[in-house]
Amino acid sequence: MAVKVQPRVLKGFRDFLPREQAPRAAMLDTIAQAFESCAFEPLSTPAVEYLDVLTGKYGDEGDKLLYHFKDHGDRDVALRYDLTVPLARVVAQHRDLPSPFKRYQIGTVWRAEKPAHGRFREFVQCDADIVGSGSPLADADCISAGILALSALGLDRFQVRVSQRAVLNGLLARHGIAEQPVQVGALRILDKLEKIGADKVVDLLAALDGVDQGTARGLLDALQGLQGDAAQVVPRLEAELDETGKEAANHLGQVMDALDAMGLSRFVALDLSIARGLDYYTGTVFETTLLDLPGVGSVMSGGRYDSLLETFGKSQVPAVGISIGVDRLFASLVELDQSPEAVSGPVAVLCPMGETAVRACLSLLGGLRRGGFPSEVVPEASWRMKKQLQFASRRRARFALILGESELESETVMLKDLQAGTQSSVAADGLVETLRLALEQGSDLGR
Amino acid sequence: MAVKVQPRVLKGFRDFLPREQAPRAAMLDTIAQAFESCAFEPLSTPAVEYLDVLTGKYGDEGDKLLYHFKDHGDRDVALRYDLTVPLARVVAQHRDLPSPFKRYQIGTVWRAEKPAHGRFREFVQCDADIVGSGSPLADADCISAGILALSALGLDRFQVRVSQRAVLNGLLARHGIAEQPVQVGALRILDKLEKIGADKVVDLLAALDGVDQGTARGLLDALQGLQGDAAQVVPRLEAELDETGKEAANHLGQVMDALDAMGLSRFVALDLSIARGLDYYTGTVFETTLLDLPGVGSVMSGGRYDSLLETFGKSQVPAVGISIGVDRLFASLVELDQSPEAVSGPVAVLCPMGETAVRACLSLLGGLRRGGFPSEVVPEASWRMKKQLQFASRRRARFALILGESELESETVMLKDLQAGTQSSVAADGLVETLRLALEQGSDLGR
Repeated sequence: MAVKVQPRVLKGFRDFLPREQAPRAAMLDTIAQAFESCAFEPLSTPAVEYLDVLTGKYGDEGDKLLYHFKDHGDRDVALRYDLTVPLARVVAQHRDLPSPFKRYQIGTVWRAEKPAHGRFREFVQCDADIVGSGSPLADADCISAGILALSALGLDRFQVRVSQRAVLNGLLARHGIAEQPVQVGALRILDKLEKIGADKVVDLLAALDGVDQGTARGLLDALQGLQGDAAQVVPRLEAELDETGKEAANHLGQVMDALDAMGLSRFVALDLSIARGLDYYTGTVFETTLLDLPGVGSVMSGGRYDSLLETFGKSQVPAVGISIGVDRLFASLVELDQSPEAVSGPVAVLCPMGETAVRACLSLLGGLRRGGFPSEVVPEASWRMKKQLQFASRRRARFALILGESELESETVMLKDLQAGTQSSVAADGLVETLRLALEQGSDLGR
Repeated sequence: MAVKVQPRVLKGFRDFLPREQAPRAAMLDTIAQAFESCAFEPLSTPAVEYLDVLTGKYGDEGDKLLYHFKDHGDRDVALRYDLTVPLARVVAQHRDLPSPFKRYQIGTVWRAEKPAHGRFREFVQCDADIVGSGSPLADADCISAGILALSALGLDRFQVRVSQRAVLNGLLARHGIAEQPVQVGALRILDKLEKIGADKVVDLLAALDGVDQGTARGLLDALQGLQGDAAQVVPRLEAELDETGKEAANHLGQVMDALDAMGLSRFVALDLSIARGLDYYTGTVFETTLLDLPGVGSVMSGGRYDSLLETFGKSQVPAVGISIGVDRLFASLVELDQSPEAVSGPVAVLCPMGETAVRACLSLLGGLRRGGFPSEVVPEASWRMKKQLQFASRRRARFALILGESELESETVMLKDLQAGTQSSVAADGLVETLRLALEQGSDLGR
């Protein structure tokens, strides 16, 4: 215990102190409840996986960002990069799971990214996925769960923009980008549209094998023209594309239709300029923009990944899912002044005036706590009243409950409402009921 | 995506599938609520810390169990081993925290232990600590939070056995074990008493520098004799020990007295055969045994660690805390048949008889979900009724809601209570209210 160590955290990693952690936890609870209302069930997987379970699914860039090391048994292991690949591993491994398997998971993931504003090396993802159904209803179910979660957080002005990888590939082919590796490259470039703008995207596309400036511009114009009402866009796609593309367009139309039947059409729009960056997507893809904060990027994204399970030796198992970006969402809620109103700490602080009052204070604690009033006793009975009251204020308590000799004798408590600035002597017996009444009368005060 | 990978988890790491994860999460929620009722506030810290932040606090054995590696910037980093050292780091680093700082944290920790029955390399801890108060009230507050958490989980038959490191050191000195390194060794041996038995402990103690078989036996007899009623034991200790030991005995007496004043004395007992293994404890230490399952070991332990903050360059900051062992506790609740009754998955499954009924089913979803009934639509409308109903049963849903042509025409739903085996035609309008009534009538059925 001799060496002194500088207390510090790694760059890109964070402490969440109570004032931030309390509303963050409340937000995660709300999201979990929304997912559960859509009948997604909770799953938990390890933070550490065999390295080979994770590699080869995120593209070369992703693989480079894995935190990996040798464990004590010289095995190559890594911290999970997302919750999707571990889910695929779970479904491939546990043969007795129901199919379709609808699960949600809220968990920490790690990526050795260059830290930047809003980008961290350790962050939390909230995912809801359905593995084992290729039905467009499954896509719509996942998207609806995401919409429900955002709505439950009080958000109303957001838009889920829905696209389709197989449709995009068909459109790329029609613009002369038919080779699979070039298509993958093109999709990764298209994914950057929001960040780098149309001109830069055209330049990057034109640098691809066999693509010139004119083709690139034509492609982007075509994609940006394919937005809006699914009932109009989908038939146009079906007319233009080959058999695979047609099927994909039809699937896309059914997803939009299902969301419409759920009464959610005002939250969704078709937008074929959405591509998503991850390699494993094969069909529907989507992103979600907060209309009042378009600059923060997507707060809820995902898509269909029908081939991911094959890497674990399963024959084709269709799968689709969403992921909510907790950090962006929380920062946005704060900026929109819609952060969950989570309070932590004591509602009531008991103030013993002298050692003799300590036992009486302690004996009141149990009833208060069981009665739903987080409470505690001032840590030092020797403090003067003023210092004890300052302590209660610093703890942001609503009530100070003072017990001195006269209160002990009369079996009363001096109840000080620190918010209203009032005080009154109340019976020690029935204290919980008294506090409840006091709160109800001042319930507009937010506690 | 070409290489096939064996889907598997590392030894000592676990997937928690929904049937286990749902009640586990419910248990953690209950514990968090108990901690909040005692005015502990939530904190979150990174899973990965600088290696030097963690080393030197757990003893050599502990240091060896750290998962450590070089990150992409060639920094030595490690996965956290517990939540206590990160808390000490937080308090040393964030100078604007209130004092005392009362926080709880529920988080995963990693130790490269040899996996064994009930011992894992990745597990969850639930901690509640008070940093910045040396008052015996703080010790009692932490212990009371732990008792409240166990009680809230429906446990009643458990005992917190409380001891005191400084008292133990005083007693060791009286038995001729006065050198600090030998005392540390002796405490580590005493900590194994429950696991290896008295004879083995005496042998190990007798192997220490300057200790013989007689001394060792005498010491253990003395410690085992110091149990039971604090009002009797504490005065005996105060009479026997030197000034430091007397003070410690007095502190111990006050902790027991405060727990008594809180009405919790039936859950606590003084027991000086408790030593705890970790190096950083300096005062009060305690362990908790489930009286009906004594073999599982301690489910809630902790103690005072007044010197840990010094390693981060702070002058002495007193601190005390408890830690609940989630795995042991959950396994015990299951064994005692007291596992939280958490259900996940749908309460109602909508069954569309043919494609035309799908939209009607989807349009009912939103109301059901907002109305508090987790629900979903059968993924394939083409399935026959029997297969759809089997699906609903497999999902453990209480209700199947069947919509076919006749229901569409009459704006009704065929409501099938899969538990009661009854069915009736009900109005589509007012479905939520109908389900609520059906549940209330059968509310003893547990949903």
